[in-house]
Amino acid sequence: MSTPTAGSGSTHTNSRSVILDAVRAAGTISRVELVRGTGLTGATVSTVVRRLIDDGLVTEIGTAESTGGKPRTMLRLDPAARYAVGVHLDHGFVTYVVTDLGGDIVARTRRAGIGTAGPVEVVARMTGEIGAVVSAAGVDRDRVLGVGVGMPGPVFQGTADAIAPPALAAWSDFPFAQALERSVGLPTLMDNDATAGALGEHWARAVPGSVCLAAVYMGTGIGGGVVVGGTPYRGASGNTVEVGHICVDLDGPECWCGNRGCVEILAGPATVVARARERGILEPGDASTVAATASVSGEFAAVARLALQGDDGALELLEDSARYVAVAAHTVATIMDTDHVVLTGPSFGVAGSVYLPVVRTELETRYFARGNHTVGVTISPHAYEAAAVGAAAMVLQSELVPRQTSVVLPASSPELTVRTASRR
Amino acid sequence: MSTPTAGSGSTHTNSRSVILDAVRAAGTISRVELVRGTGLTGATVSTVVRRLIDDGLVTEIGTAESTGGKPRTMLRLDPAARYAVGVHLDHGFVTYVVTDLGGDIVARTRRAGIGTAGPVEVVARMTGEIGAVVSAAGVDRDRVLGVGVGMPGPVFQGTADAIAPPALAAWSDFPFAQALERSVGLPTLMDNDATAGALGEHWARAVPGSVCLAAVYMGTGIGGGVVVGGTPYRGASGNTVEVGHICVDLDGPECWCGNRGCVEILAGPATVVARARERGILEPGDASTVAATASVSGEFAAVARLALQGDDGALELLEDSARYVAVAAHTVATIMDTDHVVLTGPSFGVAGSVYLPVVRTELETRYFARGNHTVGVTISPHAYEAAAVGAAAMVLQSELVPRQTSVVLPASSPELTVRTASRR
Repeated sequence: MSTPTAGSGSTHTNSRSVILDAVRAAGTISRVELVRGTGLTGATVSTVVRRLIDDGLVTEIGTAESTGGKPRTMLRLDPAARYAVGVHLDHGFVTYVVTDLGGDIVARTRRAGIGTAGPVEVVARMTGEIGAVVSAAGVDRDRVLGVGVGMPGPVFQGTADAIAPPALAAWSDFPFAQALERSVGLPTLMDNDATAGALGEHWARAVPGSVCLAAVYMGTGIGGGVVVGGTPYRGASGNTVEVGHICVDLDGPECWCGNRGCVEILAGPATVVARARERGILEPGDASTVAATASVSGEFAAVARLALQGDDGALELLEDSARYVAVAAHTVATIMDTDHVVLTGPSFGVAGSVYLPVVRTELETRYFARGNHTVGVTISPHAYEAAAVGAAAMVLQSELVPRQTSVVLPASSPELTVRTASRR
Repeated sequence: MSTPTAGSGSTHTNSRSVILDAVRAAGTISRVELVRGTGLTGATVSTVVRRLIDDGLVTEIGTAESTGGKPRTMLRLDPAARYAVGVHLDHGFVTYVVTDLGGDIVARTRRAGIGTAGPVEVVARMTGEIGAVVSAAGVDRDRVLGVGVGMPGPVFQGTADAIAPPALAAWSDFPFAQALERSVGLPTLMDNDATAGALGEHWARAVPGSVCLAAVYMGTGIGGGVVVGGTPYRGASGNTVEVGHICVDLDGPECWCGNRGCVEILAGPATVVARARERGILEPGDASTVAATASVSGEFAAVARLALQGDDGALELLEDSARYVAVAAHTVATIMDTDHVVLTGPSFGVAGSVYLPVVRTELETRYFARGNHTVGVTISPHAYEAAAVGAAAMVLQSELVPRQTSVVLPASSPELTVRTASRR
């Protein structure tokens, strides 16, 4: 039986979260606008804002003219009040960022992938690398709220199976999130990288005012996430918006995922790279599987750079891919009724200018409910670090604006445990 | 700025809703199980259950053996405690049901479609027909909580534009829900029929224990809805899960909706009927558009009956359609991570036995996260009246278990106003 969480938590906590998130979402806002926007009383807003200012989370920044009344003091988050570490644990590399409270990057580094190392060794290594990037950020460690880790595929009971080479049995059942938390000494969360990416777009106000925001994430493969009402959509098990693996050709080629005619097998980065090799646009590559995986996004970037430099063959490959990616974005909008789609992830970071107009045209001309509302399309301002930024945003949201997820998984569900950080 | 509704409503109201919905979801449940499942205190559960029993909503039904302790009294909803009227306002016909508190049908009737009548006339006519079906149900009118109306397409500011022939300007901006409410004298809600249908499957416990339930609705066209955490998923504007209009063939035929290669244009009931005529499986039909629209689901039913009676040509048409419908169901599961898909609506009511195995095989063998969880597929127990039953369920949920929608639309949003019933 699903367990609603209605009634849990004090009103005080709810008002604080509501107001903090309203300030974040608005960028700058007055107390009067907070009252109007949240439906809370003036007295509550006053009291809670005073506390948030005392805690250093919110600052007053000058005044704005109001229509006829006295000038209103504007409030905003103090970006330096808190920080979070975001990690993208991907097949070929590990990306670390430290973001401020607003989700802006204050330090970043990229390291080699975990290769064939076992989980204990990886935890130790990551602990050192997290320490290094926090030092590089030069921030007060007391203000670092926690560590978020984004990984491809489903997160299953806080383990990192999906990232490990299939041969390594040591990763199965290893409590990775817990081990990292103990080693680093900071609350640690793990989640799917595309879901985190979507949250990062939301948190950092990539699309202010969006009510239902989709992110299509293209790195090595294609994935996605949706943030609705400010909360990542989680479905039954956290395996949501797998937009690379929807069928757009019933007679299409079999995909590694078990489907056929998937967007990813027809048009994803690996396929673009393979075709570029076939057509001599790229030199034939290293046959080793591990190296090939590590370089897919790198080689895709090479194709993209050729296209942007005027190579017609490379451009044609990307435009062909864009037709399918546009349908993928369109399908997410049609199923989930999003008002915006952000194209994010390193492959859109480099090739977004080719994909963007194709996706926009698709949604402008063919989206089912276009008579009701448009679906905006933009490229993320932080596409290259989207997953790591998103992982940091997970921590910021979890610590500062805890909220009910769109689905409450039964407490006894073995399906998914995303380890929630303890409140600071 | 989106406005969270955290903090609204008293704890008393929340506990009552939580407990009432927990009893509904469980079928029968003990107080001890309620405490465990809801996280509320024993004292709260005791008090609230006492009030619900006094209000006649919940009854005690005998005892169940417990392991070693004293026998536990089981609680359940009293289905006769409350009723709701559900209306499916579809192109060719209007279906009325009265359901009890559990969502079971106690009276039903079907009448001719609204044709070219104007909204004032239709309100008057429906008022009479609602009165008639409530009389037929033989229930205490004081127990009838309200009227739910499900219609195809988006619900826009309580109007019924989508149902009216395009020629009738009288329907634009006519406050249909409000007018019907005033005329009938009962709180009135309107919503998309497939979304309502999904809620009806949830409310009537078609799939007990489902956390994220999709309904694929096939009547004249193909639509869908998702109920997640017990709440209909609404996206940005209530135009969700338009599964008939996702592209599964980039080079496919243009659809009336503006997309190409849609599931509906490739494989929906109208296409099945057209092909059946082309192949002489059905006689050439009436060329009049209105009559043709009115008869699509009727003629599809005729094809289905032929198939079930052994006509191989008819069977082949349905199996071909099933390939595409299976991909549609698969896509909803892949995007929204559902644990179950219910096939519902009159066209599945008659032809479900052909579609079911095809959809099941698709999800069993190709669903992306099948290593994480299965996606069950069943045919609705009330497929023929799914939209009307769902519309009634909307009223029951709104009155008895009011809850935050998955998306909170900004209060000032012109996009969608689903008229909410006043609390009784």
